Amino acid sequence: MQTLRQILEEIQSYSDGQEMSREPHNLYDPIAYILQLGGKRLRPALVLMGYNLYGDDTKKALPAAFAIELFHNFTLMHDDIMDNAPLRRGKPTVHVRYDRNTAILSGDAMLILAYRYLMSVDADARVCTEAINIFNRCALEVCEGQQMDMDFENRTDVSIPEYLKMIELKTAVLLGAALEIGAIIGAAKQDDAKHLYEFGRKLGISFQLQDDILDSFGDPATFGKKVGGDISQNKKTFLYLHSLETAEPADREALWNWYHSAVDESRSAEKIEAVKQIFLRCGVVDRANELKNRYYHEALENLRMVAIPETAKATMYGFAADLMQRSV
Amino acid sequence: MQTLRQILEEIQSYSDGQEMSREPHNLYDPIAYILQLGGKRLRPALVLMGYNLYGDDTKKALPAAFAIELFHNFTLMHDDIMDNAPLRRGKPTVHVRYDRNTAILSGDAMLILAYRYLMSVDADARVCTEAINIFNRCALEVCEGQQMDMDFENRTDVSIPEYLKMIELKTAVLLGAALEIGAIIGAAKQDDAKHLYEFGRKLGISFQLQDDILDSFGDPATFGKKVGGDISQNKKTFLYLHSLETAEPADREALWNWYHSAVDESRSAEKIEAVKQIFLRCGVVDRANELKNRYYHEALENLRMVAIPETAKATMYGFAADLMQRSV
Repeated sequence: MQTLRQILEEIQSYSDGQEMSREPHNLYDPIAYILQLGGKRLRPALVLMGYNLYGDDTKKALPAAFAIELFHNFTLMHDDIMDNAPLRRGKPTVHVRYDRNTAILSGDAMLILAYRYLMSVDADARVCTEAINIFNRCALEVCEGQQMDMDFENRTDVSIPEYLKMIELKTAVLLGAALEIGAIIGAAKQDDAKHLYEFGRKLGISFQLQDDILDSFGDPATFGKKVGGDISQNKKTFLYLHSLETAEPADREALWNWYHSAVDESRSAEKIEAVKQIFLRCGVVDRANELKNRYYHEALENLRMVAIPETAKATMYGFAADLMQRSV
Repeated sequence: MQTLRQILEEIQSYSDGQEMSREPHNLYDPIAYILQLGGKRLRPALVLMGYNLYGDDTKKALPAAFAIELFHNFTLMHDDIMDNAPLRRGKPTVHVRYDRNTAILSGDAMLILAYRYLMSVDADARVCTEAINIFNRCALEVCEGQQMDMDFENRTDVSIPEYLKMIELKTAVLLGAALEIGAIIGAAKQDDAKHLYEFGRKLGISFQLQDDILDSFGDPATFGKKVGGDISQNKKTFLYLHSLETAEPADREALWNWYHSAVDESRSAEKIEAVKQIFLRCGVVDRANELKNRYYHEALENLRMVAIPETAKATMYGFAADLMQRSV
């Protein structure tokens, strides 16, 4: 069994070995650019960890791991256009650094490349088709999640179940699919593969809820993104939706007004602080933590159900714990 | 053996039976919208015709045919954003009718759906993986062709071989891949599948050269698009590139100037007429026709090499002839 560190090194070395400097350069250079911006490589790590529960020759699963990383970066490239985002990991986004058309077309090519890497896994044709089927379902769900997220911007009646569905589709299913694809390449039994999928999916929802909490209440020194971003952008997160449901009338009206009227840039800090105070008065952080922990413990339950010795799951348990501590 | 008309009816009926009215509607409605705009359905017809050379149960190849049509419409949806095109088949383009973000994300979903339909072909896993491999290579080439086309806009040194490469990638390889995938589903031998691919590829180049000629010299009543569009948009087609190489100095300078200076909308007709006269003085239509016919006859040579009775290829020969007569 490999450690997470070994797995991340293997991914980095495989990724470095992929030649993206091809013609036409205007198509392939932006792909190399976004890949070298870094990131935590959580998703490809999950493919290798899923595989590693069943097989030792992790090289076999590396093309699939890279496929998942390509897919994830394809979604970032296109989402950044849709969100008009200037920066990604502190560097100019592709549509800013190059241009919008480039970001559209290079993103398309990345999605196709993801399929190509997935097909290059050295496995039985049945394994390949199963991996592609899992990937197809997940990729379409990620698009559906992104659409729901955009739809929410113009809606005033978003419910908490709808919000949870959105983060499940936009973020969580890819973690599940990464694990499931890795397990399938390792010839895992169907039941195991499904439990690993569920483990990843629930862990993903838990992870996103934590991200929502940190976005408003995280330590600016360690969070990595600007604290208060969700509030500035009027994101209808669990914190907002639950506060709106439970706040006293005056707080409810104030919260609604902050989110539904144009706020001048100069009053952005004031808005963030006011909304955070409302969140705190609603005790919503505790509620979010409860919900996060519920998904986390359900995720661990699925991991426990995977029919291999508990000792073989050490890296996976460690990964899940680290993710919730945000040390990976 | 089915006639082209029967094949087109089968495609229409399958396409009508596909439920695209799913949630979230903002993601799926634009897909239904672009599909119902129509079009000649040449590419899915090629899948069925390729299959029909080897098998009678065309239902088997219908999901792959629909996948190819989805892919083609995905490229149209994204190309229309990149080209800022207001109309497609006389109707508002998706990014105009809905918005730009919708056209990006619905296009992405269409590409994924194409893979999903391709995987739903009722065939051996080996056949599916082979079809996906052909599709992957072709899809990436189509992106490369689109990138070359965009690059050409800003280049002044485009050569005729580069132009032919661009139309091969952007247009022709998909015709080849459609036939090859159909043939593979029909369990054709590798040699046959390759000849059919080459037949489609060369027919595609021939078709595009004809489109270039018609774009400048076609009959406005039957061409379907506005005659002179390529000239208005300074498209570096074979007509332009060959004229630039062979024109007398005065014509050469005039042609260069028309293409490299801003021309007011009010002088558009004058520009089209002046450039057409230069084209005619260079005898470039004859040259384009010669080249078109060379590719066409080479294509027919590949079709002849397909190791089945010539009588079984009647629909295919008819299709190729109709395409060159532009009656399909």
